[in-house]
Amino acid sequence: MAGKGLLLKADPIAAAFREEVKTSLAVAPRKPRLVGILATSSAPSKFYADFTRKQCEELGFDFVLKKTGAGDTGDLPEGDGVEAAIIEANDDPDVDGIMVYYPIFGHQQDHYLQQASPSVVSPYKDVEGLHFKFHYNLYHNIRFIEPQSLLTSGLPSGSSASVNGEDAPAGTVKSIIPCTPLAIVKCLEHIGVYNKILPYGDRAYGRTITVINRSEVVGRPLAALLANDGARVFSVDIDSIQEYTKRPKTSTAPRYNPRHVVHPSNFTLQECLSMSDVVISAVPSADYKVKTEWLKDGCICVNVAADKNFEGDVREKASMYIPAVGKVTILMLLRNLLRLQQYQSPHL
Amino acid sequence: MAGKGLLLKADPIAAAFREEVKTSLAVAPRKPRLVGILATSSAPSKFYADFTRKQCEELGFDFVLKKTGAGDTGDLPEGDGVEAAIIEANDDPDVDGIMVYYPIFGHQQDHYLQQASPSVVSPYKDVEGLHFKFHYNLYHNIRFIEPQSLLTSGLPSGSSASVNGEDAPAGTVKSIIPCTPLAIVKCLEHIGVYNKILPYGDRAYGRTITVINRSEVVGRPLAALLANDGARVFSVDIDSIQEYTKRPKTSTAPRYNPRHVVHPSNFTLQECLSMSDVVISAVPSADYKVKTEWLKDGCICVNVAADKNFEGDVREKASMYIPAVGKVTILMLLRNLLRLQQYQSPHL
Repeated sequence: MAGKGLLLKADPIAAAFREEVKTSLAVAPRKPRLVGILATSSAPSKFYADFTRKQCEELGFDFVLKKTGAGDTGDLPEGDGVEAAIIEANDDPDVDGIMVYYPIFGHQQDHYLQQASPSVVSPYKDVEGLHFKFHYNLYHNIRFIEPQSLLTSGLPSGSSASVNGEDAPAGTVKSIIPCTPLAIVKCLEHIGVYNKILPYGDRAYGRTITVINRSEVVGRPLAALLANDGARVFSVDIDSIQEYTKRPKTSTAPRYNPRHVVHPSNFTLQECLSMSDVVISAVPSADYKVKTEWLKDGCICVNVAADKNFEGDVREKASMYIPAVGKVTILMLLRNLLRLQQYQSPHL
Repeated sequence: MAGKGLLLKADPIAAAFREEVKTSLAVAPRKPRLVGILATSSAPSKFYADFTRKQCEELGFDFVLKKTGAGDTGDLPEGDGVEAAIIEANDDPDVDGIMVYYPIFGHQQDHYLQQASPSVVSPYKDVEGLHFKFHYNLYHNIRFIEPQSLLTSGLPSGSSASVNGEDAPAGTVKSIIPCTPLAIVKCLEHIGVYNKILPYGDRAYGRTITVINRSEVVGRPLAALLANDGARVFSVDIDSIQEYTKRPKTSTAPRYNPRHVVHPSNFTLQECLSMSDVVISAVPSADYKVKTEWLKDGCICVNVAADKNFEGDVREKASMYIPAVGKVTILMLLRNLLRLQQYQSPHL
């Protein structure tokens, strides 16, 4: 044990949010219903769908899973079935949230659906925060939104950025953030990477964080969230490294921007890792491993991929290692669901 | 305000310890008496002595100040008077603690007294933790001590190191740590530089800290304390830079040593600062300034000197700046006094 970093399971972090979700559920106008659409036979997606069902049943949410895919016992026809199911769930007033499970590497049809579903799914049912307006807010560091602006076209109108308080200003609600990036931020808050003494919206200031993966559902929104919270972020993809920061180094630029900027980095992965207080990896490959010897002594490592992206001896260098965040992700999903139900209730 | 780091006064940190001291004082066997011996006419020492008196009166401690020095209204004769006063206070059973105020740059006589007083003053009255056994413990990362071993000669016998819990194991008490370094550690704990999730004795693991000053009363014990708590420490003096760490980088050494090792560093001050999450400066000179442009963006700066060692724009780079720790130092002194009174009571 001596000299080895801590192995931190996500359970105690999830437990705190489970209590929050229970409390919100107790005052919900009705039992929230989540429709899961499993558009893939990939094992991690199936596992995640099963796990969602388990959590829903345990906590008292309605979960309806609609399945498709080759060789599956799905109840959806191939092809257009998925899109039809999305539209049906969107039109059904008894459905509060829609979650589509895609494989990590989508084929042509998945790609179409991924593009189409945010336009089909009402932002009020978008538990994954994929809708254009939520995405726009995330990348523009707009944290609060007027609920009625979700129904209008164009850019989110009347949304307000605030770095002064965690609570949404009157007349606004919190924007919806994708579940996995949000879960990772919550883990980092819990373990003290975010410093509560610093003002809300800047609590990761002073931290250098490498995010390995730049997908639209995990890596890119995560890098943006962390940079908007003040961190210096290296976003690492298979063919490039970018730096996200809201404190540009040029002497003419203002010292502090409300939102991050992105620019190409000349550092190698090894150089990024040697500077990083936190390393988050979400590479969907069993073969990909972050080299332990490249890590900064005492850094914090978070594995987000279904396969372990860190070597077995990672805790020889890391002060803390979080091997999985899925349990927190599910609770972010249910938290988003409850919020959306609340946001739409005055409009029902 | 936007873009500027926080200015953190030590008051709220001191307030927490003031409550702790009040609670301990309420159950003290008798009103503790501290004798201050002002062996200098230097302004910071006088200021500190006045401040100690004020705190003592406010909280209900007895404080007796004995003064000497040219042009002063001291009640001690020049020369041997100071040594005689130390001996007298040491022999007086009504005195619980002795504090000698030296100028920061001592002349010959001060040097003699600094050497002599720890041998004259009983460890039970050594509120500054200057006694050989306390110093030995500090540099050897021995956190707990058997009270009776303080009265025997030789190395502290039966002292035990523990990294498993913050509480002293049965039959032992906490070793006494010099007030200023201890106050700085407490400030770093308060603002989240120490991570409470990590085990006691390793909570600064992952932090890189530069300490500018290597005096025997502030910089060197501070560097040792921080390194013993897991930090990588650059100890900067006027003519050299050393690295203190308990995690040596050589592949043959164990990954984790119970106490720190010290080796010369080849880094320049600029390089050290560019890597440092925390910069602590205690240079007794109004002219000395840490260059803001050398600091890592988002670092934490702590000024310990009577004069400001940081430039006026330090918060353009620092996420937090603590301009002074004196208010916490006084409370560490009173906390040490109460502990020593408690340690000796079974022997009275």
